Amino acid sequence: MNLQGFCHIPKSNYAYAYTDKDLDIRLRTAKDDCTAVRVIISQKHRWRDKKAYRMEKVASDRLFDYYQYRFHTEDSRLGYYFEVSDGTKTLVYSESGFTDTFDDQNAYFHYFQYPYINETDLHRIPDWVHSAIFYQIFVERFCNGDHTNDPVPLTPWGQPPKPQSFYGGDLQGVLEKLPYLQELGVNGIYLTPIFQSPSNHKYDTTDYRKVDEMFGSKELLCTLVQQAHKVGIRVVLDGVFNHSCWSFAPFQDVLEHGEQSPYKDWFHIDSFPVGRFTEEEAHDYTKPLDLSRLNYRAFGTSPSMPKLNTENPELEAYLLGTVSMWTKDTGIDGWRLDVSDEVNHGFWRDFRKTVKAINPEALIIGENWHNAYPWLQGDQFDSVMNYPVTKSCIQFFARREVDAAQFAGDLSGCLMRNSEQVDFAMLNLLDSHDTMRFLTWCGGDQRLLRMAVLFLFSYVGMPCIYYGSEIGMEGGGDPDCRRTFDWNRENWDKDLFHFYQQVIALRKKAKALQDGTIRMYAKEGVFYLIRACGESRLATVLNNTDQEKPIALQDDFESLISTEDMKKDVLRPFSGCICRLL
Amino acid sequence: MNLQGFCHIPKSNYAYAYTDKDLDIRLRTAKDDCTAVRVIISQKHRWRDKKAYRMEKVASDRLFDYYQYRFHTEDSRLGYYFEVSDGTKTLVYSESGFTDTFDDQNAYFHYFQYPYINETDLHRIPDWVHSAIFYQIFVERFCNGDHTNDPVPLTPWGQPPKPQSFYGGDLQGVLEKLPYLQELGVNGIYLTPIFQSPSNHKYDTTDYRKVDEMFGSKELLCTLVQQAHKVGIRVVLDGVFNHSCWSFAPFQDVLEHGEQSPYKDWFHIDSFPVGRFTEEEAHDYTKPLDLSRLNYRAFGTSPSMPKLNTENPELEAYLLGTVSMWTKDTGIDGWRLDVSDEVNHGFWRDFRKTVKAINPEALIIGENWHNAYPWLQGDQFDSVMNYPVTKSCIQFFARREVDAAQFAGDLSGCLMRNSEQVDFAMLNLLDSHDTMRFLTWCGGDQRLLRMAVLFLFSYVGMPCIYYGSEIGMEGGGDPDCRRTFDWNRENWDKDLFHFYQQVIALRKKAKALQDGTIRMYAKEGVFYLIRACGESRLATVLNNTDQEKPIALQDDFESLISTEDMKKDVLRPFSGCICRLL
Ligand SMILES: [Ca+2]
Ligand SMILES: [Ca+2]
Repeated sequence: MNLQGFCHIPKSNYAYAYTDKDLDIRLRTAKDDCTAVRVIISQKHRWRDKKAYRMEKVASDRLFDYYQYRFHTEDSRLGYYFEVSDGTKTLVYSESGFTDTFDDQNAYFHYFQYPYINETDLHRIPDWVHSAIFYQIFVERFCNGDHTNDPVPLTPWGQPPKPQSFYGGDLQGVLEKLPYLQELGVNGIYLTPIFQSPSNHKYDTTDYRKVDEMFGSKELLCTLVQQAHKVGIRVVLDGVFNHSCWSFAPFQDVLEHGEQSPYKDWFHIDSFPVGRFTEEEAHDYTKPLDLSRLNYRAFGTSPSMPKLNTENPELEAYLLGTVSMWTKDTGIDGWRLDVSDEVNHGFWRDFRKTVKAINPEALIIGENWHNAYPWLQGDQFDSVMNYPVTKSCIQFFARREVDAAQFAGDLSGCLMRNSEQVDFAMLNLLDSHDTMRFLTWCGGDQRLLRMAVLFLFSYVGMPCIYYGSEIGMEGGGDPDCRRTFDWNRENWDKDLFHFYQQVIALRKKAKALQDGTIRMYAKEGVFYLIRACGESRLATVLNNTDQEKPIALQDDFESLISTEDMKKDVLRPFSGCICRLL
Repeated sequence: MNLQGFCHIPKSNYAYAYTDKDLDIRLRTAKDDCTAVRVIISQKHRWRDKKAYRMEKVASDRLFDYYQYRFHTEDSRLGYYFEVSDGTKTLVYSESGFTDTFDDQNAYFHYFQYPYINETDLHRIPDWVHSAIFYQIFVERFCNGDHTNDPVPLTPWGQPPKPQSFYGGDLQGVLEKLPYLQELGVNGIYLTPIFQSPSNHKYDTTDYRKVDEMFGSKELLCTLVQQAHKVGIRVVLDGVFNHSCWSFAPFQDVLEHGEQSPYKDWFHIDSFPVGRFTEEEAHDYTKPLDLSRLNYRAFGTSPSMPKLNTENPELEAYLLGTVSMWTKDTGIDGWRLDVSDEVNHGFWRDFRKTVKAINPEALIIGENWHNAYPWLQGDQFDSVMNYPVTKSCIQFFARREVDAAQFAGDLSGCLMRNSEQVDFAMLNLLDSHDTMRFLTWCGGDQRLLRMAVLFLFSYVGMPCIYYGSEIGMEGGGDPDCRRTFDWNRENWDKDLFHFYQQVIALRKKAKALQDGTIRMYAKEGVFYLIRACGESRLATVLNNTDQEKPIALQDDFESLISTEDMKKDVLRPFSGCICRLL
């Protein structure tokens, strides 16, 4: 056995409370290394009652196999160790390493332990994430429902966007398009920021307590949330607490009064006087900025977005007061948190307490592009934007630089990074306002997009559609991925729209896609994803190769949806389907 | 290369902030697998400025090598990956796994990232831990300084203890023995619990706000702390918040009023009425307890110690108010926390905020017997009682069931579980009130104890002597390890006492033992531990074999202290020394 391949860490993604009485225990081994894996568990104070349980292989990535056992107990003060076998040799794996037998006499020195499941430490996530299907709206570009609030000058709807373009999209537009969202079938919307800000993206907030005038008003926001709820659509707002806009009054006060400003500790100022930049300097991306004058911390190197010192108790109180007000007054269903990984953990812990005290069913979604486990243990976020999945989809479907086996492996590895409850709450996305459109990554090849969509809606976690992808919108990196939505249906790719409708409808109907276990593997270059929930089993089969491939499922099946018309049992190149196993 | 042996996890013990401008980056590899390891780092927004840094192998355990690099930066928004080589092949290791080259075009998808060092998330630990030498006092057995407070009936001082024996030790006794502690040389005392409780150990608290009458008074405690501080001795108290005594008034109220008690949620009651047990039932360990009547959660299966529901906000406020009062009013230097792993993390987070707000120099030490990393990330404890080191010492010195190489490896592995600042704050102990005395583990063979003591005082972290070990006290498991201290010097092992004095004096003098780096290895069955700080380098060499062994150090050396008289360059069986490298 490859001893270096084994991994278990108590109180981590390898051993976590799933409920107050269920402990998930995982063991990682080198791939194809073990033939049998058992976990031997007992309540610590009754060690002699220890029992062995067979662990199930639930995932494999490029290098490892992952075994899991869900242990149900009324008394969660547990000791445990593993017995691993490769068919010829059996070893004990405990906190003391590898031995031939377990030293029961000194058990407390050697076993792994799970000391106790405390209910308030348990990561509880609202159940509704299982059936949620999100739609991300970049508000300024989705729909202009009110021309009286349009900024000046206005770029005509439909023209290619530049960094500073304004088109007039607003909350009234979102409100008017609720019927459209119902027609599409989604049941959640995530709005990019809507609070007062001079920019089109509004990730640089000037007033956290005011809905931007270009977008509407607090009353309109409340109406939007109410109307959305009436038609079964949840609303998540974007919280930008890592940085503000330089026109945020406290920062202006610091610019003006320097060290005398009562707000000087709301930011990270290296030295006084604070460097001033002109609008042109800050926003003319053709000229390099004189960063020697940037003597305060900022988002990236943008002087127009000074970093907020969320470690300052007064600022924290101000921001959480704001969060509290919006959460309470509007009835929203959660927050997406911008640049969440650069903000202190302490702030997020208090943020969670604030939000969940008002609405325990509210969802907290971080913007973390990388392994986000440190934020996803129950004390901070419920979920993050799942960019590692985005990356894998780009690599497999669009760039075809990994094969089906690697894709299955990479995803499986990602699933093992977090607890099962977190995996089911992940916001899975193919693209966003911060990436190239997925169809553009695919060079416009809709066959690839469709396969990716089947995957996205089959995978564990909440699918999220970036506005307009469902009608075939394309676009490169920012600002091109933020084009206006074309409401003239004549111009839509109606086949694609219907395809999205079908996939969404299937996801909403099929419990297996919402709640089921997941297994992924490859066979003859074809990707298989199996979801199972009780008797119901669905298989997603994707042939991302240039050759016709048989569908190699052990059971009989019927296709429920496919990327194109298909022959029974055979997938044409770059096509796929979701089947029901009979 | 053994790809399964590589491990790196951002924002963990593999990548943590050491200061607000220093990031420690660690990489684990399979043992003896790599010939060169580099980390390539850049500020994320200036990726093209990336630079490579050689990583140093800082530790090896049975299976792995550990490399480390301390990266100093003014801007902690970092991306990084590794380049690993076995001499013939070089691979890139990133968050995306292993590749031949790094994809700089899509760097943000692939690199490991450390998003930002937030100062308030940083794990700051008081500097004084580096020079601290603790002495654990089981108050009831150390010294009876006041006969007016003696409980009745009293067992004569010196008789073997039974579970319920009382001897009359008290705070006045500790106060009177401060000169003794100065003579010994320690500069910290950790007192087992002193708050009101009917037992001799006082781990079952009846009144958290009162010093036990058998032990003294609040005034006496304040005097003790003041007097100790005057002679440079810090004082750490024992906080028992996992459970109370059944005579704790709120529990009595629940017993009496059942569901009507306002305190019913301060405990974990499964059903009403609450089961009642007699003193005899609870404390007669010869008869099995009828656990079917235990319908509330308890410490272990002890009905006399009901578990506290520290998740209840009212109880938390009560307990933290208590902690606040003692911390403020007495000027103590920290808390040791009983059964800390069974209490909710949220309670400990608030505990830390409470204590550090009053005294940022106070130290928080958990009682966690196992890998305690989940509690040692800066938001909860600074340290724990380092029982994994106790275990390794028992295995190596006392039971001789592991050899020097395994001992060095096991310890090195333990060091890599936590950040460096935590390792330096660990409370390292050979024995305690919860274990057999170390000399007894050694079958009374003082040679083995002396080697273990040299080790303990050479190792990274705070050495802690269990009262009386320095005069040769023996004792089996509880209650035998809680014998009374014999103040008749005629009966002491004076050689051993002087040995302890010398070792303590050396530790206090030698900066290398306090602050130095540590490397451990074995050669010809002999254990080597090297501490280095600037020009000063000390080597601890321990021959735990039954054969004479040469001291195989590359440099010239002079012995500073040894377990017995020694010949130059040679260690007799079961002997050791600490040398200065010249
Ligand atoms: Ca408008
Ligand atoms: Ca007394």
